[in-house]
Amino acid sequence: MRSLWWEDHKLVFIDQRHLPFQLRFFEADTDVRVAEAIKKMVVRGAPAIGCAAVYGMVLGEEPEKTARRLRRTRPTAHDLFYAVDYMLEHGCSLDAAHAYVETVIDKCRRIGRVGARLIERGQCILTHCNAGALATVDWGTALAPLRAAKDRDVFVWVDETRPRLQGLLTAWELQQEGIRHALIVDNAAGYYMQRGEVDMVIVGADRIAANYDVANKIGTYEKAVVAHENDVPFYVAAPVSTFDRSIGSGADIRIEERDEVEVTRIFDYGPEQVQNPAFDVTPARYITGIITEDGIITP
Amino acid sequence: MRSLWWEDHKLVFIDQRHLPFQLRFFEADTDVRVAEAIKKMVVRGAPAIGCAAVYGMVLGEEPEKTARRLRRTRPTAHDLFYAVDYMLEHGCSLDAAHAYVETVIDKCRRIGRVGARLIERGQCILTHCNAGALATVDWGTALAPLRAAKDRDVFVWVDETRPRLQGLLTAWELQQEGIRHALIVDNAAGYYMQRGEVDMVIVGADRIAANYDVANKIGTYEKAVVAHENDVPFYVAAPVSTFDRSIGSGADIRIEERDEVEVTRIFDYGPEQVQNPAFDVTPARYITGIITEDGIITP
Repeated sequence: MRSLWWEDHKLVFIDQRHLPFQLRFFEADTDVRVAEAIKKMVVRGAPAIGCAAVYGMVLGEEPEKTARRLRRTRPTAHDLFYAVDYMLEHGCSLDAAHAYVETVIDKCRRIGRVGARLIERGQCILTHCNAGALATVDWGTALAPLRAAKDRDVFVWVDETRPRLQGLLTAWELQQEGIRHALIVDNAAGYYMQRGEVDMVIVGADRIAANYDVANKIGTYEKAVVAHENDVPFYVAAPVSTFDRSIGSGADIRIEERDEVEVTRIFDYGPEQVQNPAFDVTPARYITGIITEDGIITP
Repeated sequence: MRSLWWEDHKLVFIDQRHLPFQLRFFEADTDVRVAEAIKKMVVRGAPAIGCAAVYGMVLGEEPEKTARRLRRTRPTAHDLFYAVDYMLEHGCSLDAAHAYVETVIDKCRRIGRVGARLIERGQCILTHCNAGALATVDWGTALAPLRAAKDRDVFVWVDETRPRLQGLLTAWELQQEGIRHALIVDNAAGYYMQRGEVDMVIVGADRIAANYDVANKIGTYEKAVVAHENDVPFYVAAPVSTFDRSIGSGADIRIEERDEVEVTRIFDYGPEQVQNPAFDVTPARYITGIITEDGIITP
């Protein structure tokens, strides 16, 4: 199942606001409605947002106006702007939109094929956050090798990933794919590594600096350090486009501090001060390899 | 404020089931009622449970019957059995109960004095779980040095400590004591260590093996590894009675696997499989020192 697809002149989304509790769909037959889906987080994950935007450009009647409308939805998602410009250059045709989406999916499929070579029968792999089909339309990045190797009886340890609990989305995807897994609190990942029950870690990436430092969801850094200490290989799976050569090292990556409500809403209680950094940087020295659509890069 | 105290022929507890959301009290004027308080987790933390039990023995009319009743409440809390036996040996007098509790509190106060020597003005200290007054009647273990050093403008990073969120209790205690602090998700602890914003980690201990391996709340191990990697001193604060010489190393400590509901109740959704180990073991090589009432022990 894809996170979104074109059907009967409409764009259909899995409504991620209700996952994993309910599988509901959201239909968009106008550009206004696509913009609403992006803005209200029916769809999340930069590659998936870009794919929604290309169909939004197909549905719009006035390209420049639609472009402005879509660009206003989520100001920080790089793929969104890239996708809108791509469609303006390619005449906003449905064929161009399909081609864009197929390119995104094809990169993920190739990441899966490249990464699957690392996985042996019966191995246990830990992942953090959700870098799956929901974030990338299909296959995902970190989850792509697991899907590609699923006939090898792999087992996945799923970090719940506080504060936003994206691990629930990962568990839901693995369930759809029939891949064995267990959800654990983030605190328990090191415990299983220490006991030798983790053969490999695979995570996604938000941005990769020129020196291969990787910015990803908060907590990735801790997993990488503990994996390194336990001689557990630590892989990052990401398309080549994630590399940002303009950034020298992780020290130059600004870390977003998000609303403390993300932390406190599960207990509905406000301590005096809450800090909520959304990402962290994993230094290249802890990374065994970066799995891309063109092969594995070793920092 | 203490977690429990004797007043007008009754034992009064802070009802920890409602913290940090509400400050409520629970009164016990019979041994049956004390047993209820222990069983229903009005009071938690092995030292505090022991202190409740000694007053339960005072309130009971038939010592052997009361002893059986109290021992049945929480089968795994070592202090409970020790406290009941102590009272049987000392005639179940109120004086004996007060003496027992004062001894527990005095050890914590001494841990505070010993540990406070390590803390310099303005330092930032990270703690995990709750090893505070609530778990030990007063002062706590990991929190005792922070209270003893509070006039030195210390700041505390409080891990929320999934799955049971004992970090909220720690934040509540620090608020009562006027000690500056911020609550963070467990995933963010490494981020602040990496940025040089953590000067020291202090945690409690459930059990310490003969080789100084420390069993404590799940996640402690990860913090210790990441602290070690960042040259952040990592201290364990615990009374000498926490040492269990009968256990050779952490490998011999059985780790309790607890109900998956502890993990899933915050999202009311059941993934196919959830694993919930309650503790982990931190190897002695990551521990800078163990702060006891008799001084600092270096593994």
